[in-house]
Amino acid sequence: MSEEAMAADEIMDGVYRALCEHGYAELTMQDIADECEKSKSLLHYHYDTKEDLLVAFLDGILADYEQRLACWADRPPAERLVEFIARFVFTPEEDERESFHLALLEMRSQGPFNERIQEQLDRSDELLRNSVADILDAGIADGSFEPVDVDRTAALLVATLDGARTRQITLGNAQPAASYTRVVAEEALDGIVDPLLAEGVDRPTLSDALEQLDD
Amino acid sequence: MSEEAMAADEIMDGVYRALCEHGYAELTMQDIADECEKSKSLLHYHYDTKEDLLVAFLDGILADYEQRLACWADRPPAERLVEFIARFVFTPEEDERESFHLALLEMRSQGPFNERIQEQLDRSDELLRNSVADILDAGIADGSFEPVDVDRTAALLVATLDGARTRQITLGNAQPAASYTRVVAEEALDGIVDPLLAEGVDRPTLSDALEQLDD
Repeated sequence: MSEEAMAADEIMDGVYRALCEHGYAELTMQDIADECEKSKSLLHYHYDTKEDLLVAFLDGILADYEQRLACWADRPPAERLVEFIARFVFTPEEDERESFHLALLEMRSQGPFNERIQEQLDRSDELLRNSVADILDAGIADGSFEPVDVDRTAALLVATLDGARTRQITLGNAQPAASYTRVVAEEALDGIVDPLLAEGVDRPTLSDALEQLDD
Repeated sequence: MSEEAMAADEIMDGVYRALCEHGYAELTMQDIADECEKSKSLLHYHYDTKEDLLVAFLDGILADYEQRLACWADRPPAERLVEFIARFVFTPEEDERESFHLALLEMRSQGPFNERIQEQLDRSDELLRNSVADILDAGIADGSFEPVDVDRTAALLVATLDGARTRQITLGNAQPAASYTRVVAEEALDGIVDPLLAEGVDRPTLSDALEQLDD
């Protein structure tokens, strides 16, 4: 990895930690500089504004996510779909993940007021929905899924998992047993995914998929 | 209605309009006072702090919502469930509703940092999930729904509808046709609700339910 690329990686890690620590609304370039142990002027050398830096950060997250999904592209569609769902599951003990998604939620609530942030959010939504639609298309093509309107089913699944995550991170202890994301992922598998499977097609359990993601 | 109750109603309408106009993060007592055409000192006479006022506001919304649901309690369970789902649907043209839910989303992202706001969010989540569970219980009791784990199904439905709303208000034009809430509500009816219906039980269409809500 070039020195340039390493510096960029360190800056992006700094953005991540700064978002976890300070949230989005009150985040400053100084917070980010502190977290990645670089000077504020170096950050400004690479990124004119905080917005430029955040847009680059969101862009990087999307690219990472795309790459991780691509690693699974050769697996059977049913397995890929369970894996997609399992990625949304986390326990209330994962504080950092919760803090990060809370900061993203703040950012999302500002999306409509910031064109460039909204563009990234729109891209993220399309990426998620297209990923599910691709998996469904592949499964219909190889006979493991029943024919279905893939775009509508994708919208349903993405909304469901996003809603579970938002509720889990914003609510206190008054949640469904285990965690919102876990309960909803299991229900989505039983209620939405299983009816799509062609006769005789098996899928991994959520626990199996979670173990695989941990490896 | 007493003068006192009328004043309280006017203040709550002012909070609603101020949230739509200014969002949550930067909302001031002065904004609220301006929107309800009262003095800031009058607001402070009734509510010590902005937080007190917002907690009372959330409390009022929940009470209203509970009351509206109660009006439907005598209808057949399948009809009540469609109505519950239809309440989440709105078009991208409903700007005020979008602004209001964006402000609520900002507030939700702050929930974990504010105990009293979080208590109200928790109450709202319980109210939503319990409402669905009650409808499902009623349907299982009268034979119109198949037996099902009502709490888990309720968590699934609430997460799904919440996720669709969050995506609709935060994203730009790159959404599923019609609107996220509409597409997801229809898919949830076909994919989640219909399989629960006992044989021979009909349910209203989403369009019918939306028309009824408009009346």
